[in-house]
Amino acid sequence: MIVTPVTYRFDQPLSLRGGAVLPAYELVVETYGTLNADKSNAVLVCHALNASHHVAGWHADASDQPLARSEGWWNNMIGPGKPVDTDRFFVIGVNNLGSCFGSTGPTHNNPATGQAWGADFPVVTVEDWVEAQARLLDAMGIQTLAAVMGGSLGGMQALAWTLQYPERVRHAVVVASAPNLTAENIAFNEVARRAIVTDPDFHGGHYLQHGTLPRRGLRIARMIGHITYLSDDVMNEKFGRALRTVDGEDPAAVAELAYRYTTQDVEFQIESYLRYQGDKFSEYFDANTYLLITRALDYFDPAREHGGSLGAALARAQAKFLLVSFSTDWRFSPARSREIVKALLDNRREVSYCEIDAPHGHDAFLLDDARYHAAVRSFFQHTVGAPQ
Amino acid sequence: MIVTPVTYRFDQPLSLRGGAVLPAYELVVETYGTLNADKSNAVLVCHALNASHHVAGWHADASDQPLARSEGWWNNMIGPGKPVDTDRFFVIGVNNLGSCFGSTGPTHNNPATGQAWGADFPVVTVEDWVEAQARLLDAMGIQTLAAVMGGSLGGMQALAWTLQYPERVRHAVVVASAPNLTAENIAFNEVARRAIVTDPDFHGGHYLQHGTLPRRGLRIARMIGHITYLSDDVMNEKFGRALRTVDGEDPAAVAELAYRYTTQDVEFQIESYLRYQGDKFSEYFDANTYLLITRALDYFDPAREHGGSLGAALARAQAKFLLVSFSTDWRFSPARSREIVKALLDNRREVSYCEIDAPHGHDAFLLDDARYHAAVRSFFQHTVGAPQ
Repeated sequence: MIVTPVTYRFDQPLSLRGGAVLPAYELVVETYGTLNADKSNAVLVCHALNASHHVAGWHADASDQPLARSEGWWNNMIGPGKPVDTDRFFVIGVNNLGSCFGSTGPTHNNPATGQAWGADFPVVTVEDWVEAQARLLDAMGIQTLAAVMGGSLGGMQALAWTLQYPERVRHAVVVASAPNLTAENIAFNEVARRAIVTDPDFHGGHYLQHGTLPRRGLRIARMIGHITYLSDDVMNEKFGRALRTVDGEDPAAVAELAYRYTTQDVEFQIESYLRYQGDKFSEYFDANTYLLITRALDYFDPAREHGGSLGAALARAQAKFLLVSFSTDWRFSPARSREIVKALLDNRREVSYCEIDAPHGHDAFLLDDARYHAAVRSFFQHTVGAPQ
Repeated sequence: MIVTPVTYRFDQPLSLRGGAVLPAYELVVETYGTLNADKSNAVLVCHALNASHHVAGWHADASDQPLARSEGWWNNMIGPGKPVDTDRFFVIGVNNLGSCFGSTGPTHNNPATGQAWGADFPVVTVEDWVEAQARLLDAMGIQTLAAVMGGSLGGMQALAWTLQYPERVRHAVVVASAPNLTAENIAFNEVARRAIVTDPDFHGGHYLQHGTLPRRGLRIARMIGHITYLSDDVMNEKFGRALRTVDGEDPAAVAELAYRYTTQDVEFQIESYLRYQGDKFSEYFDANTYLLITRALDYFDPAREHGGSLGAALARAQAKFLLVSFSTDWRFSPARSREIVKALLDNRREVSYCEIDAPHGHDAFLLDDARYHAAVRSFFQHTVGAPQ
């Protein structure tokens, strides 16, 4: 499945929750499958921190896009014959405002100054993304979504859709998500942000004007993020306390290696893995986007306007839900998904809930687990795809 | 209890595990209580990352030492009538080599160059610290310890004592510790180290010669550390999603505050708490010491020389043990303490094990929990203090 992104331009100003107004903006979009005649088979897929509109399939040429690989980030889930079957559903992937993968964001020019927005790009929230996505559906002539789905921050958008446009969402699939961040979640985001903001190459967020990039900060941010996406179990299984392999060294000899006794060089494999992840990320991800997206995570809290009652907040939702969580996900633990399930059940909504015993931590939502994919497949076949 | 540190100087070279030789060194020491006539009531307390010889009591004048407060870090545990009763035991606190609180370390002058050691200070291990501590006991004329005790990295030293000098340790108290670090533990240490080493003010570890301090990196390192010392539960209880209090604002009005929608300023209380902790730490802690101490944690692994068998490694131990762990400590989880307990029981050693259901995470080992303190008190009264 070779796919090509399309850009939609919107000239009607968008008022953001934070008070700013975006005068005009572009959204980059990919679609998979065919919209049916009555436009009732559309599925919107919302992305998380380090992802984009490129949800499924392959790009013919990877060189025109900043992500290192050209496979869609949820290509194991979405496509012909896959759990979200594009022979049946018309799937839409959209890059969010504030991102660095094509939609209007901090690396684009601020029309008021003619310079890159940088740190002046307005704060965007999950609710703002949903507004922009709703306008995209308007432009596509789609009134109602068969389903909205996402994992992690994408799951928050799916949940927000059911509250902002309850009449436009028939089903919602919320994977490895939460009704808001805990203090610990916010804390990890904050350390990552401080690493970026205090990098001398950050220049208050206007590094592009200075011809620099705050790569040191981005590396640290990504390393922290990466640790929290994995479980202790899977890190022990993949790396344990194994020592580094140096180029040219016989891997079989690594088990016999002696400590080198160094504080600054790589000693353990987990260190070279994290350094590699940090280096790679710092080459393609925008620092201001990192700040914006982690803040969107921090701010999401639908219960906040309802005196802290999630039950009251979710009373507006009309969709049928599937929630999925993973046992070793300590960033968005099963307990957080169960809070959403309970609040929906308290409102007598239809909810399926699937708690997968998997060792992969938060990353599990992107991996190919047979039980997880079977649950999503079944929901799309028998619930989303049922005659209306 | 007003206490005064004493400095011991050692002119006999110390060969370190990493291959380096420290030609001479000083250890700063505090003692509490009175050594009895047959020198059989000595208890050595080993410290963890951010601590020192100042275990108990108060300094008459706090201005002569870099720690911000003058109370000993385990003053709730050690003193007259306390769980480790200094009316009965002679307690020794010693600052480890490589520290920045008085014992020979990277901020001291390298006699070979006349300049501060900085990054050239040799890597020190848990085993090296035990060697240095053993020489200290020699200098004090103490042949056998009634007990060695410590929490976290201090617990690793207590365990190492029972392996390096089994005949000199009658009892060992190992609190909130582990037989080695997991990959996740190493990963958090590595991110903290990278934050320090990539700070432009680090200058390869020779920042003192450059008249700078890598405060940015230290701040990030401390923020990461702080998150991992606490539990998700206690962070939610203490901070939750509460918004910042700005000086002069009515705290009662905070609950009603609106989001400010900012990516770089403080929005949540957890953020200002972490920033404060990072700032404070960066004022008094040495960056090279941070690298050395986290590496000592990474390297500790007594099973390594025994083909990975902890049981084989602990066969040398002769002491009677008390192990304590805390349910929400995810940095050194109860499962890791149970590994030590099992390996000791497999060797038919005497072990008491106490798993405390406490919400405070790793920090619990420093806090005043009645069940925890009762267990330590009972062990010292009835086991350590039993007639030999």
